[in-house]
Amino acid sequence: MDGIAQTGAARLAARYGGDAPDVSAPANAVVDSILAHRSIRAFLPAPLADGVLETLVAAAQSAPTSSNQQAWSVVAVQDPARKARLAALSNDQRFIVQAPLFLCWIADLSRLDRLGAAHGRKLEGLEFLESYMVALVDAALAAQNAVVAAESLGLGTVYVGALRHHPEKVAEELGLPPNAFAVFGMSIGHPDPSVPSAVKPRLPQSLVLHHEQYAVAEEPARIAGYDARLGAFSQAVGMGRQDWTQRMLARVGTAAALSGRDRMREALAALGFKLR
Amino acid sequence: MDGIAQTGAARLAARYGGDAPDVSAPANAVVDSILAHRSIRAFLPAPLADGVLETLVAAAQSAPTSSNQQAWSVVAVQDPARKARLAALSNDQRFIVQAPLFLCWIADLSRLDRLGAAHGRKLEGLEFLESYMVALVDAALAAQNAVVAAESLGLGTVYVGALRHHPEKVAEELGLPPNAFAVFGMSIGHPDPSVPSAVKPRLPQSLVLHHEQYAVAEEPARIAGYDARLGAFSQAVGMGRQDWTQRMLARVGTAAALSGRDRMREALAALGFKLR
Repeated sequence: MDGIAQTGAARLAARYGGDAPDVSAPANAVVDSILAHRSIRAFLPAPLADGVLETLVAAAQSAPTSSNQQAWSVVAVQDPARKARLAALSNDQRFIVQAPLFLCWIADLSRLDRLGAAHGRKLEGLEFLESYMVALVDAALAAQNAVVAAESLGLGTVYVGALRHHPEKVAEELGLPPNAFAVFGMSIGHPDPSVPSAVKPRLPQSLVLHHEQYAVAEEPARIAGYDARLGAFSQAVGMGRQDWTQRMLARVGTAAALSGRDRMREALAALGFKLR
Repeated sequence: MDGIAQTGAARLAARYGGDAPDVSAPANAVVDSILAHRSIRAFLPAPLADGVLETLVAAAQSAPTSSNQQAWSVVAVQDPARKARLAALSNDQRFIVQAPLFLCWIADLSRLDRLGAAHGRKLEGLEFLESYMVALVDAALAAQNAVVAAESLGLGTVYVGALRHHPEKVAEELGLPPNAFAVFGMSIGHPDPSVPSAVKPRLPQSLVLHHEQYAVAEEPARIAGYDARLGAFSQAVGMGRQDWTQRMLARVGTAAALSGRDRMREALAALGFKLR
C-alpha cells in the first residue's frame, strides 16, 4: 500500500477522475490496496526479499481455476542477459531489464498433454479453442492475484503485452514445450520513488456496469467526458494530453497497428495449439 | 477474511496440502485474504449491502488493461427470473439462483466497434484473434480483482464457466450487441455457514514455477503425490476421494466431455468475432 491514508470516496474519485459512482463504499485494507493500483515502469535495482517470489506464486495458485485444471505456469526470469533478450523481443521496454524480476505467464496445456501421454491417452479436448481459452483465463486470474499481493507488499508491477510480439522466439528463449504460450510478461520490483506514478482514471462505471441487460444509452456523451478527464489527468502528470478516443482508433484501427500480433493464429499453430 | 487467525506458514500448508515451499513468507492482510480463497457454492438469501456492487466494479476497473482498451463489461443480474433462466443455461447450478447477485463478465470489443462507427471507421484490428485475447484477459483480470475485493468483505464467490455452454442463448438473454461474449459468470453472496468450505490444495509449486526456463523434472512423481494429497483432502471434506489425474483425463479426454463448448469457434463466429 502506498502509505497515503485516503478514504474510500477519495480512492473512487481518483479511479474515475472525479466521475465516481455516488455510493457509500465499504472499505478495508484489501479494497484500498486494489483501488490504489497504478502500473510502475521505473524500478530500483534492489532485489526482492527472500520468499517474495514464492509468496507471489502461492497467491497466484490460490486463484480459482477452471475445474481445477491449473492450466498455467510461470517462468521467473532474473538472469540479466535473459531479461535483456526478452526485452529486445518485447518492444525494447527498458524497465524489463531494470526490474529484478520478470515473470512470464504461460497459458499451459502442455502439462495435461504430458499427463495424457503418460497414461497412453491423446486428450482430444485440449485441441479445442475452449481449452486454450481456459488456459488463457487461468493464467490471467493467477497473474492478477500475484499483482494484488505484490502491490500490498509495497512492490510495483506492470504487465507486458509486448511479450506477444514474437511468440515463437519467446517460447524458444524460455524453453517452452508444445502447447505452452507466453501470454504476457510482468516486471516486478521496488518502484523508483524519483519517477512519479498516479492512479489512471477509467471509463465511467455506467459504461462498464450494466443492470440485467447490456445497454448503451448516452455512450457518446460519456466517452467525450472521459476523453476530457483523461486528457486533463495525462497532461497534469506530464504525459502529454492523451485522448482515449483517438488513441483507441489508432490502437486497433489497422492490422499493422497490432505490431505483429495480427499473426497470432499462425504463431499459436506453430506452438502446437489446434484451436478447433 | 474468514476470521481465523493463521500464520503465513499455515496458510501455505493449507494451499499445498502440506507440500508447501519451505520459505519465510511475507504476510499482511491482503496476502492472507488471497491465500485463504475457497470457492463458495451455498449462499444465504440475504442481499448485498448498498454500495457493494459498485465497489466490486470499481475494484474490477482498477485492474490493469491492455493499452487502456478496457475491453470488458459486466452485466449484474439480480432478477430471480433471469437468474433462473441463466442457471438453466449453465448446467442448472442451484447456487446461481440462491446467491443474490450473478455477475456475467463480458469480453467486450463492441464498445470499440461502436467508437469506430461513431467516427466513420471500421476498426480492422478488432477482427484479429489477438484482440479477442485482449478482451478475454482484460475481463479475467477485472473479475479476479472483484473476487479478491468481495472475499475481503466477507462475501463468497464462485466462477461459473458453464455460462459458456450456450453462448448465443446467453447473449440473447443479456441483450449483448455483436462482438460481446459472456466469458464466465460469478455468483456472489453471503456464504451459508451451515455448508462447510475449505481451501483446496493445488499442484506443488515446483510444477508451476519455473526458473529461467521451463523444466519438467520429476513431474510424474510429483503429480502422484498431488493425487494422494488431493484424495485425502477431498475425502476429509466429504467430497469423496478425488484423483486429479483421473479427473483431468476425463475432463479433457474427448470433445464430448467439453459439454458443448467444443463448438466455441462456431459460437464466437455467430456472435460476430472474426478471430482472424
